[in-house]
Amino acid sequence: MNISHIEHIGIAVKNLNEAIKYYEDVLGLKCYSVEEVVDQKVKTAFFMVGQTKIELLESTSADGPIGKFIAKKGEGIHHLAFAVNDLQNSLDEVKSKNIILIDKKPKKGAEGLNIAFLHPKYTFGVLTEFCEKME
Amino acid sequence: MNISHIEHIGIAVKNLNEAIKYYEDVLGLKCYSVEEVVDQKVKTAFFMVGQTKIELLESTSADGPIGKFIAKKGEGIHHLAFAVNDLQNSLDEVKSKNIILIDKKPKKGAEGLNIAFLHPKYTFGVLTEFCEKME
Repeated sequence: MNISHIEHIGIAVKNLNEAIKYYEDVLGLKCYSVEEVVDQKVKTAFFMVGQTKIELLESTSADGPIGKFIAKKGEGIHHLAFAVNDLQNSLDEVKSKNIILIDKKPKKGAEGLNIAFLHPKYTFGVLTEFCEKME
Repeated sequence: MNISHIEHIGIAVKNLNEAIKYYEDVLGLKCYSVEEVVDQKVKTAFFMVGQTKIELLESTSADGPIGKFIAKKGEGIHHLAFAVNDLQNSLDEVKSKNIILIDKKPKKGAEGLNIAFLHPKYTFGVLTEFCEKME
């Protein structure tokens, strides 16, 4: 397992445009990309802050994971994503340490990354994602 | 307002020692400091991940902010802290944009930083901290 940095922080918001306005006008960050991830039922907006991205997530459907999260917990930080250099190996390693995975195999995420989630029940309440950049 | 990077991510946990064990043994990160912040009624543990710290927070009292957070929402990500280079100026600037501050003036946080919190009601559900490193 070799985590190099925090790749991104996923934040669930009700209204992407209003949240983008706050991150740009108040915090002075710059939205460089808006992307829909159909598979995850979300529209995303990205900001670079040092070496880490902020990924705002608006649900495109009430029954998507972000829609359900907001219904239960309200808007707020949804997940934490670590950059790893060998995703499948990292998944195998944490599994061997009795951590339950949501995704046993890498899948495609936003920005062309390969991603996989660990189950928050086994990560002290933090929905944890591993990301691998494909060259 | 000039945010350079994400200074740290605060994560509320019930048991600091068990959580440290997960971050070290499973994620392969190294805890470099454990510190009690009496004022905030927390014991903290720090890990460096690239340019960002993970700050685990265990409440030393049920009526502290972390104790109350866990009672209401369970363990998980508690706040997001941005590094700024002029804290008082940054606070004045966001206040002028109608964001309500929890701390109108900087106060002392862990690791000798000057810190202040913005109210999550005005930051799309994310308890947001600004940190300034004092040289």
